Amino acid sequence: MKRVGIVGGLGPETCCEFLLAVNREIEQKMGCQADVVMENVAMPHNEMKKLAAGSFSTFHKDILAGAISRLHAAQVDFIVIPCNTMHIFIDDLRKISKIPIVSIIDETAKECLQQQITKVGILGSSTTIQQKLHETKLHSIGIETVIPSREDQSEMGEIIPRIIFEQNTKEDEQTIVSIIRKMKIEGADAVILGCTDLPLVINEQNSVLPIIDTR
Amino acid sequence: MKRVGIVGGLGPETCCEFLLAVNREIEQKMGCQADVVMENVAMPHNEMKKLAAGSFSTFHKDILAGAISRLHAAQVDFIVIPCNTMHIFIDDLRKISKIPIVSIIDETAKECLQQQITKVGILGSSTTIQQKLHETKLHSIGIETVIPSREDQSEMGEIIPRIIFEQNTKEDEQTIVSIIRKMKIEGADAVILGCTDLPLVINEQNSVLPIIDTR
Repeated sequence: MKRVGIVGGLGPETCCEFLLAVNREIEQKMGCQADVVMENVAMPHNEMKKLAAGSFSTFHKDILAGAISRLHAAQVDFIVIPCNTMHIFIDDLRKISKIPIVSIIDETAKECLQQQITKVGILGSSTTIQQKLHETKLHSIGIETVIPSREDQSEMGEIIPRIIFEQNTKEDEQTIVSIIRKMKIEGADAVILGCTDLPLVINEQNSVLPIIDTR
Repeated sequence: MKRVGIVGGLGPETCCEFLLAVNREIEQKMGCQADVVMENVAMPHNEMKKLAAGSFSTFHKDILAGAISRLHAAQVDFIVIPCNTMHIFIDDLRKISKIPIVSIIDETAKECLQQQITKVGILGSSTTIQQKLHETKLHSIGIETVIPSREDQSEMGEIIPRIIFEQNTKEDEQTIVSIIRKMKIEGADAVILGCTDLPLVINEQNSVLPIIDTR
């Protein structure tokens, strides 16, 4: 069995759910628990918030690089980072890693192709949207995108940290639901939940568009 | 901040909840994610079932010893194993570990003392009960114990693997609730959920006795 390395803690709830999902999948397929090592990184909250808001630095990259280096020592076969925003560093991290790092961005694009989606909405942190993490990749394979308006993205930027730190409200959920509704009007076939914490509040029940879950 | 090593996967749901609880605790106290490395061990299901049923061997100990050794390499400050049954090996594991391993058994006994409990019910896997993991420790500090009857323990032995692998029924919950009721009649002040997966079905709402949660 392949040994998986997970960079965890960003956010904590999603990573725990992801680890559990990996265990359940391997249980079903192999009658065994999964061989996983999770490095749960000690990222300070204020730095997580800065990062999500667009203000990223080598400080954040160094924390990730430390985790990657420890996962190398732990002799994993491949590495996953269940956080879209952190993928701004993926090219740099892949340069320093001898072990393959799976990219959420690439896997999401493959999933859109497989589902024959021609136009897709993207939800994510302000960094994910501003840096066009999903957009650039999707455009390169001929998929059109819809992103929130500047005002809506500004709200998303406030809401996401509240979801991560369990302080979100019913109103936050309704705001996201209404942004997805606008994406449908603009012709999107589906919406990418391009922040791994969004499935904690958005699902097939409250979204008017089919969901591409990036966890 | 201290770096925690967790031996995970036994069972998977509890370990993920435990990791999340550690993150939430550190978040509140330090405004930061926790510095944790979790070794999720690839224990086969049939071996987990054998182990819970009383048939343990060096095979199981070796899997744990491997995880302990990898956590040494990962330079943790202390190690936790969120599984009561696995504590049958704790003396051997402590012998091979230069890093402290926290014992659920010792911590549970301390908690009973602190709560001034004089007689306590114990629920757990057949191994935990047969090997008197909690009983011996509790008796050594003057706390009386109540364990399920042979027939009831036989049922518990069937139910626990179903809880771990998500196949338990409402009837299973009612069986445990009724065992706890008998413990109350026998004079227990509280009940130790001496299997970290039991809180997935037993809680302060459906238990007639106050709960000592071992997670």
